[in-house]
Amino acid sequence: MQETIQTTDALSAESVKFMVDNLWILVAAALVFIMHLGFSMLEAGFVQKKNVVNILFKNVMIIAIGLLTYWIMGFNLMYPGFAEGSSGFFGFAGFGLTPGPDDMTAAYADYTYWSDFIFQAMFAATCCTIVSGAVAERIKLIPFLLFSLLFVAISYPITGAWKWGGGWLHANGFYDFAGSTLVHSVGGWGALAGIILLGARRGKYTDKGMKPIPGHSMPLAAIGVFLLWFGWYGFNGGSVLSADPELVSKVFVTTSLASAAGIIGSLIMSFILFKSYDISMVLNGALGGLVGITAGADVISVPGSVLVGLIAGFIIPLAVSFFDKLKLDDPVGATSVHLVCGIWGTLAVAIFGNKEALLIDGTQYGTFGAQLLGIAAIAVFTFVFAFVVFFIIKAIFGLRVDEQEEITGLDIGEHQMSAYSL
Amino acid sequence: MQETIQTTDALSAESVKFMVDNLWILVAAALVFIMHLGFSMLEAGFVQKKNVVNILFKNVMIIAIGLLTYWIMGFNLMYPGFAEGSSGFFGFAGFGLTPGPDDMTAAYADYTYWSDFIFQAMFAATCCTIVSGAVAERIKLIPFLLFSLLFVAISYPITGAWKWGGGWLHANGFYDFAGSTLVHSVGGWGALAGIILLGARRGKYTDKGMKPIPGHSMPLAAIGVFLLWFGWYGFNGGSVLSADPELVSKVFVTTSLASAAGIIGSLIMSFILFKSYDISMVLNGALGGLVGITAGADVISVPGSVLVGLIAGFIIPLAVSFFDKLKLDDPVGATSVHLVCGIWGTLAVAIFGNKEALLIDGTQYGTFGAQLLGIAAIAVFTFVFAFVVFFIIKAIFGLRVDEQEEITGLDIGEHQMSAYSL
Amino acid sequence: MQETIQTTDALSAESVKFMVDNLWILVAAALVFIMHLGFSMLEAGFVQKKNVVNILFKNVMIIAIGLLTYWIMGFNLMYPGFAEGSSGFFGFAGFGLTPGPDDMTAAYADYTYWSDFIFQAMFAATCCTIVSGAVAERIKLIPFLLFSLLFVAISYPITGAWKWGGGWLHANGFYDFAGSTLVHSVGGWGALAGIILLGARRGKYTDKGMKPIPGHSMPLAAIGVFLLWFGWYGFNGGSVLSADPELVSKVFVTTSLASAAGIIGSLIMSFILFKSYDISMVLNGALGGLVGITAGADVISVPGSVLVGLIAGFIIPLAVSFFDKLKLDDPVGATSVHLVCGIWGTLAVAIFGNKEALLIDGTQYGTFGAQLLGIAAIAVFTFVFAFVVFFIIKAIFGLRVDEQEEITGLDIGEHQMSAYSL
Repeated sequence: MQETIQTTDALSAESVKFMVDNLWILVAAALVFIMHLGFSMLEAGFVQKKNVVNILFKNVMIIAIGLLTYWIMGFNLMYPGFAEGSSGFFGFAGFGLTPGPDDMTAAYADYTYWSDFIFQAMFAATCCTIVSGAVAERIKLIPFLLFSLLFVAISYPITGAWKWGGGWLHANGFYDFAGSTLVHSVGGWGALAGIILLGARRGKYTDKGMKPIPGHSMPLAAIGVFLLWFGWYGFNGGSVLSADPELVSKVFVTTSLASAAGIIGSLIMSFILFKSYDISMVLNGALGGLVGITAGADVISVPGSVLVGLIAGFIIPLAVSFFDKLKLDDPVGATSVHLVCGIWGTLAVAIFGNKEALLIDGTQYGTFGAQLLGIAAIAVFTFVFAFVVFFIIKAIFGLRVDEQEEITGLDIGEHQMSAYSL
Repeated sequence: MQETIQTTDALSAESVKFMVDNLWILVAAALVFIMHLGFSMLEAGFVQKKNVVNILFKNVMIIAIGLLTYWIMGFNLMYPGFAEGSSGFFGFAGFGLTPGPDDMTAAYADYTYWSDFIFQAMFAATCCTIVSGAVAERIKLIPFLLFSLLFVAISYPITGAWKWGGGWLHANGFYDFAGSTLVHSVGGWGALAGIILLGARRGKYTDKGMKPIPGHSMPLAAIGVFLLWFGWYGFNGGSVLSADPELVSKVFVTTSLASAAGIIGSLIMSFILFKSYDISMVLNGALGGLVGITAGADVISVPGSVLVGLIAGFIIPLAVSFFDKLKLDDPVGATSVHLVCGIWGTLAVAIFGNKEALLIDGTQYGTFGAQLLGIAAIAVFTFVFAFVVFFIIKAIFGLRVDEQEEITGLDIGEHQMSAYSL
Repeated sequence: MQETIQTTDALSAESVKFMVDNLWILVAAALVFIMHLGFSMLEAGFVQKKNVVNILFKNVMIIAIGLLTYWIMGFNLMYPGFAEGSSGFFGFAGFGLTPGPDDMTAAYADYTYWSDFIFQAMFAATCCTIVSGAVAERIKLIPFLLFSLLFVAISYPITGAWKWGGGWLHANGFYDFAGSTLVHSVGGWGALAGIILLGARRGKYTDKGMKPIPGHSMPLAAIGVFLLWFGWYGFNGGSVLSADPELVSKVFVTTSLASAAGIIGSLIMSFILFKSYDISMVLNGALGGLVGITAGADVISVPGSVLVGLIAGFIIPLAVSFFDKLKLDDPVGATSVHLVCGIWGTLAVAIFGNKEALLIDGTQYGTFGAQLLGIAAIAVFTFVFAFVVFFIIKAIFGLRVDEQEEITGLDIGEHQMSAYSL
């Protein structure tokens, strides 16, 4: 008898559970990876034909820079293992990855050290992708890549550590399930700093008012949004950090319905504002709903998720108009989607979040105060970081292509080639 | 000892199996989701350049409408829990979702209530997507969306309940594993009703015979078909409703080979009929094979699946010609693929299905009679429903855009924008 | 008590582990499937607008031919079950698939016979896809399909059997984890034979030197590369042949970082050589990194994988220039990516591979000698096979379209249609 049970122990249900959890984190990482194709296509679709090679090139470089810097330093900057009683503002656990056979599963109940790294690494690069769309059609290639490198290697992991690394915002009850603030707003603040320093594209804001510059391919934009939505099942679903049936299932439902409601909300508001059925608005409405539910996909009820998405959908056309009024030119609407809906989603946790589920180890997470603190602290750090980095790069190298290149297009100017040819 | 065993019970192999099954249903749901991108691209590729925004817009709205109405009422209409002795024609379990912590896993051996909902919800919207392609390039936007809303909220779940909800067709031995009839033919009948009431696109059927109107982008159509095939691994594979190794593996094989054989069949028949190597025919041949195997992917042998796919491939060019002879204009071939091959696949269960596997709890499923009954009953209900709804909408709002808008294109007419620009 | 334990035995942790492993193989097969869309888009993007239907048509046919021939004979040619003491050069286990309920799991610890078949079948077709890109824009349709049929039905499985089927290269310590040689170089050698016999496209190599023929759509090429990368998680991750947490996680990390480093390496080298930021180079750099790490993704350390990828990235622009100097015209760079980086990756196992991990059952795998033997043996067999087949087809049917058709394009010439239209 004893033997039988020992045999069972040799391959225990626990070890199979570990396999399942780990497999889900890896599949989720692959899904988050495909979001980079989603971003590439969304941005490529929304820019002019003459700037398509440039936006694709930037997106290919971003995934490379993101993964490699996260390996070199980002991961250990974001998950430094803050010591008890440390400030929780900054920590660093050394360069590279150092798993031994023994510690592979040491600190992780449900997945390997490597799975943790690759899942988190896929997230890291997304924050730069968000910036890339907003500053498109006028930023110089190398200065942008330099910014991306510093942003993803330093800024993103430091603020990430404040919550997901167990830092001071975590200690103060801030809640951000999968990154409405930690990923999306961070990208949004970087984008905002960029477009302020760059200025609008020529011809966008004229004496006679705002003149839309239509994107060159709506099918590419649609591919982008559907792939982002698809990848979001990994982004949110994987953020459960296990294959827990109840939580992952629920997150799939809230994520799906928030996106669907974002489409409806955006349709309604854009019809009210513009009296038109604008494909770019409903596409961004889906993304707004997804960004909105990201902070609380696990703690917001199903009807709550519909409301969160619907309101995010309402926000999109309003935010696009608002930034246009400020003459802040964002070709793809990244600030409206990721910054504004990222803030909304973070606050939505305080409104719609299940208070019991947010009471963890005696701490009440996700209160209004804690959410505002997190939003503000990360806003200040990220915006200042991005602004200063962009400012220094601008002073040294210049940020913006010259007038002639902007008119001819960055594809010829930076790459001596066109995206399309006979 | 007793303690050891109780510890094992705390995390039993059964509970880990539940995790695996549930995870597969969720991954399958994500795969079915990506079919909506597949449909969008297939339809966008097969329509003219001037109607691309419109078809994308409709597909974005359909997924939103599909998910939200399925949440509001569709799920409880399709899975009402028919009482013993009830007619099994109609039931409704109330609005919204109402899972408590206790009943989450109550009625489901292998996955959560939420997983069941989201997997089924992803299916629901596909039936409207099938319609959307067939009626493309001439239907008004809002009337189409109104039809979609009623079709997915009412018609699809009611006929779905007859089989998958345990209703009267199920009781009468009808077999439809993953929806050759319940999903694809349903969409096909809706499409047929629409194109009858709409009439053909201007210039398609002239005094000098049928004049093909070529689709504007074969790469988009190819993206669509490959993504549909990819998603079909979730559509059919997930329909096992567990991660059962034998069944899911087999379904992957039969699904793959039927699609491959559909390509070959369509190549042969289109070469015989038209003496050409037509990319749209082989693309639709793959889809025909997939639709064909869907009803019996679990009960048809591997060689049988090749025959089912091959015959479906033969059918595609014949059906396209047939509908053209009747002057029923379907820009993407949706009726040939989903309606005709859906019927073929449902009958194929009776021809190729393993009789032993189809003998369930003493009832012989999938006999010719039962299959014909199911095909006919769902045909009558769906076609009548769709025809009446389209008819009423036509009477009140009109269905078809005016001549000038059709010539200019629906992108400008309905959306005041173009899909492509410099 | 005894009863309780028997109940546990009825659903043991082992059987749940089998479910997880099997599910991962199936999900991996679906991911490898999507690589066919990746190849289609990469090749479509890199050819001229007038040859797009043709390249899509070939890719659709290849997946059909690949799956069906692998079912008919390839699988049993590649995994014949070499008898002890046989030469290990050639074996055949009969036509079709013959699993019974009992032997389904007999020879397979971790997955079903069907899962094994479908995962391997998805691999098989890729070798022809590699050829298809290299010979694009001038090869006749039916001769190419005939070549593909023979190549995938005979050549690929025979050399595959030498290693993965347990044949003579396996016995001699050759190591190729997921196919740098067995899949990618094999495709590359076939491609090389084809482009030698076909000659360059008209106008590529002129008296005034090489004149680039730009691809018609960089967004399609980018879609192709990202989808290939995405699918590679199944290609490499699934080649673990189980969901083993340590190995699959590690493979995800090495695969990701090698691809990222390939981008950087290619950027550096192409800037040094051409002083430009060429999108096609960084896209192929990612693929080069992926091909490079494929032979040793499981036995090369994380820093090692970065070096393997970086060097593969360096190789890409050098190899492209090298083939151009030899006037070997390859429109998509398939020989540089799959042949040269395939060889590099196979050698990289000897340089960077963990010697302990490569010591299996007392045999030291992956030595320089063994790797060179494998590369050379498979080179000779595959190149000779492909050359002879292409030569015979050329003698009987002709290989190349006539001058007028090449100028007009193969879309009109072979298919009487265009890829794009209004």
